[in-house]
Amino acid sequence: MEAKGCNGIEHSNEIINKLPKALTNHVTPIVNSQQVSEKKVLPVFPWFAIDIGGTLVKLVYFEPLDLTLDEIRTEGEILMNIRHYLVSNRAYGEDGFRDDDLELKNIKFGGRRGNLHFIRFPTSKMPNFIDLCIMKHLHTLTFQVFATGGGAYKFEYDAVEKLKLSWHKCDELDTLIKGLSYLSKLNPNECFYYEEPQNEANPNKHPFKFDIQNPFLLVNIGSGISILHVESETSYRRISGTSIGGGTFLGLCCLLTGCSSYDEAIQLATAGDSTKVDKLVKDIYGGDYERFGLPGHIVASSFGHMNLSEKRDQATKADLARSTLVTVLNNIGSISMMCARTENVNRILFSGSFLRINDLSMRILAFAMDYWSRGKIKAIFLEHEGYFSAVGSLREFIRDNDDLTTTATTTQN
Amino acid sequence: MEAKGCNGIEHSNEIINKLPKALTNHVTPIVNSQQVSEKKVLPVFPWFAIDIGGTLVKLVYFEPLDLTLDEIRTEGEILMNIRHYLVSNRAYGEDGFRDDDLELKNIKFGGRRGNLHFIRFPTSKMPNFIDLCIMKHLHTLTFQVFATGGGAYKFEYDAVEKLKLSWHKCDELDTLIKGLSYLSKLNPNECFYYEEPQNEANPNKHPFKFDIQNPFLLVNIGSGISILHVESETSYRRISGTSIGGGTFLGLCCLLTGCSSYDEAIQLATAGDSTKVDKLVKDIYGGDYERFGLPGHIVASSFGHMNLSEKRDQATKADLARSTLVTVLNNIGSISMMCARTENVNRILFSGSFLRINDLSMRILAFAMDYWSRGKIKAIFLEHEGYFSAVGSLREFIRDNDDLTTTATTTQN
Repeated sequence: MEAKGCNGIEHSNEIINKLPKALTNHVTPIVNSQQVSEKKVLPVFPWFAIDIGGTLVKLVYFEPLDLTLDEIRTEGEILMNIRHYLVSNRAYGEDGFRDDDLELKNIKFGGRRGNLHFIRFPTSKMPNFIDLCIMKHLHTLTFQVFATGGGAYKFEYDAVEKLKLSWHKCDELDTLIKGLSYLSKLNPNECFYYEEPQNEANPNKHPFKFDIQNPFLLVNIGSGISILHVESETSYRRISGTSIGGGTFLGLCCLLTGCSSYDEAIQLATAGDSTKVDKLVKDIYGGDYERFGLPGHIVASSFGHMNLSEKRDQATKADLARSTLVTVLNNIGSISMMCARTENVNRILFSGSFLRINDLSMRILAFAMDYWSRGKIKAIFLEHEGYFSAVGSLREFIRDNDDLTTTATTTQN
Repeated sequence: MEAKGCNGIEHSNEIINKLPKALTNHVTPIVNSQQVSEKKVLPVFPWFAIDIGGTLVKLVYFEPLDLTLDEIRTEGEILMNIRHYLVSNRAYGEDGFRDDDLELKNIKFGGRRGNLHFIRFPTSKMPNFIDLCIMKHLHTLTFQVFATGGGAYKFEYDAVEKLKLSWHKCDELDTLIKGLSYLSKLNPNECFYYEEPQNEANPNKHPFKFDIQNPFLLVNIGSGISILHVESETSYRRISGTSIGGGTFLGLCCLLTGCSSYDEAIQLATAGDSTKVDKLVKDIYGGDYERFGLPGHIVASSFGHMNLSEKRDQATKADLARSTLVTVLNNIGSISMMCARTENVNRILFSGSFLRINDLSMRILAFAMDYWSRGKIKAIFLEHEGYFSAVGSLREFIRDNDDLTTTATTTQN
């Protein structure tokens, strides 16, 4: 897919004087953008890509720090304001957030130098987002957006008709792998594992040196789950999936506990005890089911105690949230393990927004993988959980201009 | 395991005169039980076996129709009363039920002729059941019980100490296969499939001629799920399982809808619409996810709509119950299908109490298997869902005395 030029409206030279202090501080004007990269013709700014998932919209925005005088002059007031709005806030209204702890600062991207920002808001607010763009006069410009996720299809009509955008749809799994490949090379701490996941106080988190050329399983936990067998950046198969995913956790928690956000649901789950809700092997057998090596402490029936009113009375909201989390994770772990064995791989990478701020879930998954594979299969997690498809789309947008042959400096917070 | 003799208390000959009319009507006294079978020494009556599962206790009782005068004289008042109580009722208190539609009438069993009865009650009532047995003076006799399921282990102490029973534990999966093998040979209509599962009015149910010697997958849906690869009656492996089973369906339904029984939960689910609760592929993509052959109508995220309060307001209790059912079944179907492919088998038998009075679930599973395997994998169901382990234990109790080499007459209701 080839990127097209932007038809931004030209503005007067005075605009440069209106640049907010926050922006001009780190802009180092250079004479000609051709100096930056002569390899490929790059699209003009703004550079962003959007992944519209079932529950969350993930937006990555590259904020250039090396704008030329020409670029500053021609950027126009509308785009300048948007740039300023995006980078100088951490929250946008009630529902939008910039994950500033994930920001990749002063990186080389598409031959330019700048900061990569990570922003998210609920997919249910997409109509509001489109209205906001109209309010900010984005529809008076015409520029290009690379979009991925199911919403790239669902919202195409609105994007093209209402916002007059040049809308390029990218496949979410292609871009997921592209984004993973890029960020895992750029950021030496991107991939990590837990040495002692069951040790709550210190699970011993270590960076994992990841090589995308070695076959692995990629389990993407969004609203639902996709499981991919990846052989290289360009060769993979979707081998399985399940509808019991992050959306199931959040939906059930909202129903069972009255909570209204993912963060609240995770907080509840962290404080709960799932054994008040689930029936364990020992609740049925009085101990282990030795014949088939099933220890008494594992779950025999998720929510299996909840058919009895006295047990329901004893279970707190936190217990219900914890059980929901454990149910979803055990299922993901079990299916992933089956797939890893069938495909004969020993590394499972878990990606997806569900694992954001979700250390508990990562440790549960890591422990399950370790326990059931007897240490043979390693669970690997990622710092930029949830943002890989958006990053992959942004790489497609800049036509994968190679930044990683030169030394990229990464200063992650 | 060898069956031991019963130490029943001898009673006077007058007892025979006290036999209730319902019993004496079909008792054809014969002189000597040795005439019935000379092949093996059989245990004396009563013949029953019990499968104590995570949610339900299943009890099978063989009611002899060919009692000898000696047997009638020596049976004793207590056992005679119990026999009468079991066969002349369909409900026992509020929680116990005899599934009289499943009764196998006038069959040859262990060389004797009689009726096989199928009785169930909730496992949570096991303590009450033990108290009832004491009240009925069962603890004053000493006889032998073959028990299976997790509760065979959990309740062993009570059975031996309080009821003075000679308690033989059988593995629930061994007996499951033994019971399946026996009933599928005895009853020509035991196994069946749906030709058109999606046709609610007439799914075209047909008997399936089952041969246990051809490898197949056996998916046992109890409180949790066990998946077995069966090569013959004596050769099988437990290859997988999941904690998302019948107990999950019932537990979640109780929490989400306030229902209090399995039958009520199934009734609710039958009337509900899961698409009000689940996020479908088309809700995310606006249509199909063509790249990976995922049609718009399939579930992308179970309960995926329920994070939004307006969607929660629109969902009825019936919708929530239906979604719970579909979530559990889709997961079972998906894991079973993966196992069938890995093991290279094309028949999946679904067993377990969860499928009792659950035509809807069987049709959903059958359709899923048919759809996802493109007709290559057949879902097969069983009339005596849930009772196979109990029947298998009863076969062990009578030391598998072979009844099936002679023509057994089966008159199922």
